[in-house]
Amino acid sequence: MTYETYFNRTRARLLNFLEEFLARKRGEMSGIKTWGDDVIRRLAEFTSRGKLIRGGLVCLGQEMTGSRISGDTVRAGVAMELVQSALLIHDDIMDKDPQRRGFPSLHRQYALLAEMDRISDASHFGISMGICFGEIAIFLAFEALAGLSGPRQRTAAAQEAFASEFGLVGLAQMHDIHSGSSPRPISLQQVMDLYRFKTARYSFSLPLSLGWILGGGRPSVRERLELCGEDLGMIFQLKDDELGLFGDENVTGKSVGSDIRQGKKTPIYLHLLERATPQEQKALGAIFGRQDISRKDILAVRDLVSRYGILEDIRKTMDRYGRRVKNVVRSLPISDRHKSVLDSLLVFSLTRTK
Amino acid sequence: MTYETYFNRTRARLLNFLEEFLARKRGEMSGIKTWGDDVIRRLAEFTSRGKLIRGGLVCLGQEMTGSRISGDTVRAGVAMELVQSALLIHDDIMDKDPQRRGFPSLHRQYALLAEMDRISDASHFGISMGICFGEIAIFLAFEALAGLSGPRQRTAAAQEAFASEFGLVGLAQMHDIHSGSSPRPISLQQVMDLYRFKTARYSFSLPLSLGWILGGGRPSVRERLELCGEDLGMIFQLKDDELGLFGDENVTGKSVGSDIRQGKKTPIYLHLLERATPQEQKALGAIFGRQDISRKDILAVRDLVSRYGILEDIRKTMDRYGRRVKNVVRSLPISDRHKSVLDSLLVFSLTRTK
Repeated sequence: MTYETYFNRTRARLLNFLEEFLARKRGEMSGIKTWGDDVIRRLAEFTSRGKLIRGGLVCLGQEMTGSRISGDTVRAGVAMELVQSALLIHDDIMDKDPQRRGFPSLHRQYALLAEMDRISDASHFGISMGICFGEIAIFLAFEALAGLSGPRQRTAAAQEAFASEFGLVGLAQMHDIHSGSSPRPISLQQVMDLYRFKTARYSFSLPLSLGWILGGGRPSVRERLELCGEDLGMIFQLKDDELGLFGDENVTGKSVGSDIRQGKKTPIYLHLLERATPQEQKALGAIFGRQDISRKDILAVRDLVSRYGILEDIRKTMDRYGRRVKNVVRSLPISDRHKSVLDSLLVFSLTRTK
Repeated sequence: MTYETYFNRTRARLLNFLEEFLARKRGEMSGIKTWGDDVIRRLAEFTSRGKLIRGGLVCLGQEMTGSRISGDTVRAGVAMELVQSALLIHDDIMDKDPQRRGFPSLHRQYALLAEMDRISDASHFGISMGICFGEIAIFLAFEALAGLSGPRQRTAAAQEAFASEFGLVGLAQMHDIHSGSSPRPISLQQVMDLYRFKTARYSFSLPLSLGWILGGGRPSVRERLELCGEDLGMIFQLKDDELGLFGDENVTGKSVGSDIRQGKKTPIYLHLLERATPQEQKALGAIFGRQDISRKDILAVRDLVSRYGILEDIRKTMDRYGRRVKNVVRSLPISDRHKSVLDSLLVFSLTRTK
């Protein structure tokens, strides 16, 4: 089965539960009705625009144990997606990103509302509302998790793994912000470590692991599953960097060059800096980290990346991760059907254009 | 027993657990060591500077059921305080407050660090780091809650009440931000509803309720306990408004007049607007919501508040809440020792200067 067929199916189940859950919450929020209705509507809209791969991976993780997808698993999957929404919303504030998936980012939505409502300092209003919104999404996620009803040993372990991993994401995000703003150099190894915690582990290892735990899978396998998730996640993030520079905005829904604008020290950037002549390094230094770069600046960076074959270097790394994923998947005590989903997810991660 | 004696004792137990918990987490955060150490240190410092009344109320709530304070209760108390820290940190970003408890507020700490580190846009850097920091504190709180080990019916109910109530706090905070920024009028009733969710319920009803649930207290009593908490919390918030205008900065640790600067529609402000002459209303309109008001402006507002006897009106409301608290406390099936703690907390709420 392809990952696409699989995730389309789990997506429907996740959205179903999300809708029910949020409808019930909307009722309970009548004490603060205006904003309750507003937040629930925007949150449902925002979350359901995603591919819900993380929630789908929780389902996959459980099915791999040999059991059928349970209510607890769907619940944990929705919790994953709610926190994911929160992180994206807060990230867009930090990155000053006005767009997400082709729509105004959430803090921008509130800033626009403020402008119509004659509110002074609309930009700060949007940020404040976005911070609260993210908090609420996180609290809703944990409320969903509080309702896990399977064997207690499993549900407690899932709750703990969930909270603990997202704490590390927050730290990695701080590291990322700092390394993007600070003039201090950062090594390739440090960036890769950062990627592990900022993206790979929580997006792939955690959901697979949550499903495995909730399905009562053997702990010894869980570790291999997490390693496989980490490698898949690293590929995903490296591809993200590539699409951020060479992707088609109309397909990705993200503005090209935003990593450059934020001065993000991606592996592409680090490799490039190593190869470039002193003169080129100087030119790059004048472009990276500047908010007002032009289309011409982005093309100049692209040109250097192509000329020095940087993407080929990155792809070698991705292929190395890919080979490890294949080996681990082959060794897992799971059905061929589930192996084929993971294999197809690997192919997608290596070749995706959005 | 006075509330002070009681909360000093619980404070020590809470800090003890907090320290242990954070030390263990610091070890687990070695993958992102630099920021792990930094966050744990600042979070311990920030949280331990508070009075930990919310955590203490969880303990009180449990003791009222007749059992001794359990590990679960201390754990839930620490979770309360961790989310409280997160909310304060995020609030200071939204309110642009440079100080908290006489120290630089957390996002300012990071902005100052950025200035030393030659980071561009130190202010936005501080905000971004503060957002992440708050997220991490929330995740740590839920990790602590995931470790609750008492009867499952109780622990699940506590987790759910916790997550659900804080979601409402987020909504109330959005309402508060909006009503502070929007030129639209807001009624006294709306402000009181807002206070219920923004402060009263989560600060008093929730912790008492958590302790009661974890101690296995009767559900029928829980409702009365929550009502009593709500009223106590309303008094607390109304007193907060008073101290925000008339308090001694050296005692409260907060800058006087910040509600005016943010254009907060407090009951004091609403009462004042109702009584003031058209000319005075115009003068007030030119002061409220302006960041750069002078000491003279604040004194002018104070003068009007005194002249129209606004504080006497507010105190009448507080006394009404106070009488209700007394009646409910008298009716509770708890020991006289615990009744005296609540009574003394009521007196403190009505008369505190910080």
